[in-house]
Amino acid sequence: MMDQLIGDPAITEAMRRIRDEGDLAELVARAAWTVIAEPGDAVAGTLIAELGAVEALEHALARRAGGVPATTVDADGLSARRALADARKRWQPRADPHAVRAAVLGAHDVGATLLIPGDEQWPTSLDDLGVNAPSGLWIRGRRASLVAAPRVAIVGARASSGYGEHVAAELAGDLAATGAVIVSGGAYGIDGAAHRAALGVGGATIAFLAGGVDRPYPAGHQHLLRQIVDDGAVVSELPCGAAPTKWRFLARNRLIAALAHATVVVEAGWRSGSLNTAGHAAALGRPLGAVPGPVTSASSAGCHRLLREYDAHCVTSAAEVRELWGVLPAPVERGDLIDPERIRLLDAMSSRSRVSETELARRAGLSPDRVRTLLGLLDLEGEVLRDDRGWRRTSAPGG
Amino acid sequence: MMDQLIGDPAITEAMRRIRDEGDLAELVARAAWTVIAEPGDAVAGTLIAELGAVEALEHALARRAGGVPATTVDADGLSARRALADARKRWQPRADPHAVRAAVLGAHDVGATLLIPGDEQWPTSLDDLGVNAPSGLWIRGRRASLVAAPRVAIVGARASSGYGEHVAAELAGDLAATGAVIVSGGAYGIDGAAHRAALGVGGATIAFLAGGVDRPYPAGHQHLLRQIVDDGAVVSELPCGAAPTKWRFLARNRLIAALAHATVVVEAGWRSGSLNTAGHAAALGRPLGAVPGPVTSASSAGCHRLLREYDAHCVTSAAEVRELWGVLPAPVERGDLIDPERIRLLDAMSSRSRVSETELARRAGLSPDRVRTLLGLLDLEGEVLRDDRGWRRTSAPGG
Repeated sequence: MMDQLIGDPAITEAMRRIRDEGDLAELVARAAWTVIAEPGDAVAGTLIAELGAVEALEHALARRAGGVPATTVDADGLSARRALADARKRWQPRADPHAVRAAVLGAHDVGATLLIPGDEQWPTSLDDLGVNAPSGLWIRGRRASLVAAPRVAIVGARASSGYGEHVAAELAGDLAATGAVIVSGGAYGIDGAAHRAALGVGGATIAFLAGGVDRPYPAGHQHLLRQIVDDGAVVSELPCGAAPTKWRFLARNRLIAALAHATVVVEAGWRSGSLNTAGHAAALGRPLGAVPGPVTSASSAGCHRLLREYDAHCVTSAAEVRELWGVLPAPVERGDLIDPERIRLLDAMSSRSRVSETELARRAGLSPDRVRTLLGLLDLEGEVLRDDRGWRRTSAPGG
Repeated sequence: MMDQLIGDPAITEAMRRIRDEGDLAELVARAAWTVIAEPGDAVAGTLIAELGAVEALEHALARRAGGVPATTVDADGLSARRALADARKRWQPRADPHAVRAAVLGAHDVGATLLIPGDEQWPTSLDDLGVNAPSGLWIRGRRASLVAAPRVAIVGARASSGYGEHVAAELAGDLAATGAVIVSGGAYGIDGAAHRAALGVGGATIAFLAGGVDRPYPAGHQHLLRQIVDDGAVVSELPCGAAPTKWRFLARNRLIAALAHATVVVEAGWRSGSLNTAGHAAALGRPLGAVPGPVTSASSAGCHRLLREYDAHCVTSAAEVRELWGVLPAPVERGDLIDPERIRLLDAMSSRSRVSETELARRAGLSPDRVRTLLGLLDLEGEVLRDDRGWRRTSAPGG
């Protein structure tokens, strides 16, 4: 199988056309892994981590199962052997050089390339996924956007409300205008509003697809995805030609969460797929934000669930999103420090009539000495005025 | 002074009319303390805790400052002495037997009574306020409501929105209908909506006022407060005749927070007074809930601030409010458990055309053995059908 891949001029030539540098065997092996294994295949990830992509592929596709390397069996030998034997059975039906060739040629047709671990523009934050990390990424657009920082995921329901789309656009526009890369899933609703707002301010945005990057999905976002290719990147771990499936949407969500420095869910129903993205962000220890909304809106129920069950941060502005990755807010004048005696003395005064110090002491429940001291301070601040008949406030109460 | 109080037949007779049992000297002394000290006076609270209300009053009002009892000076003798000397100076201007007599007669006029610590219907949860606890409570209405349980504070901005009033009414109505006592501040906006909803379902509600219980405040709530007297209680630590002041509103908030088993802020601006109530609840270790709203609404900014800065619980329903004081929710079918292989196999199937097991294995990235096992299970569940030409789903994808 490996000989058929590396020796196939159609594959190697196509690979050199989409990548003019890099280890050819490694590139072809990783392209093959994206074809053979479904996203997040932990057995594939373990094998690749231990043997490298090329040797792992030889092991995976050998007609007869060879010896399993010692390190894969040390903890629980029997189940590791069985997992590998089971994995071979699911990889074999897809082990077709024609499929790998079609994937690389398909990428070439749409101007996509393959990024693999070790590349300068490989986003190492994906390595936090461990054995569930992707074996490679197919990408159309600007590779540099994958490693630009900060990156923030703005995700949410397809069935969004006008409120949700407005907030998604406000947040993504502000963040993108100030240099953040907006990561999302290219879907209708919140995702689309976030991508569009980023493009609208001349910012960068990345769309992770659940199928091949040659398949604009959803179809109604063909034009939007084309713009994202121009000004950002459209990325997938699935090879060209692969259809998006329910499983691949779920698996794709882990890439959004892992790539971004923080994830914000803008609007989500009780069972929205974006809660799955949020769950991945939380599991990875990435900061997670949720935008609240009316409790009477089903479109915000998922966000409130994140606040209640996932300990998500409540975010209401771009500044609060920036705080998620450690940008401290400008100091806010709290204005709620309470000086009881000062309040009580002002409570006892009027802006219309004069009151004596003795009467102020009685009204405010303060000693005459304290009243005199406070009046002196308030006088300096211009809050009170004195004349022969007593003290009054300079402005009406209520502030 | 004490002799003038206890010996004044107008005071003692009036007190006996509003209270037909209890230690008369203790009652009169505590009534006098509500007149002489502003709410939350910690020196008064300390003195009363150490000497009892009667002896504390003698010390407070002696013409010449006598010796301070040993226990009040043990930690920091000098400053305790000074605090007491300062306190005497602020109590003296109010030390007027006529004012105490007027307070008791005023209570009699409106059918109010005085509750003091040790009374069967004294809400001991107020004792958590320590030296800031009230020396007594003036109350019109049903004393039993103060000790009924559970009690939940529903508070919020006067400048509320239709959304906030709707949610306040929904929560208060549901909670009151299921036996909770709704505690609030009698103000326009959220407070009023909560009181009204509780009355509307025949439930109990308590309004804490910042002035005397003989002064309906705000004036526009005269009728509402009258209804609360009939079906619940209107309560204040201020004596009859006392005007509400800014300080007294702030001090009143601590009583709402301390009386309730949990506090919920429904709607609040960035600097709403209800954040002060929330701060007291948090400081007392009482569960604190905040209702989220649109981030575009200034009326919800304070609630979002509570979620962010005070670690308040996000509450969106009466059931979630009940969880604040430990009522566990009914088990919810989560429905988001993900079985990847099951999802992938169903992804690979169609409801219209039949697919072979071999082809399903290739499409789903599963071994043929696993496909057979899963198909068997899905067949039992009625999800898939088999005939001579292969397998298909019984229903269209997308659920």
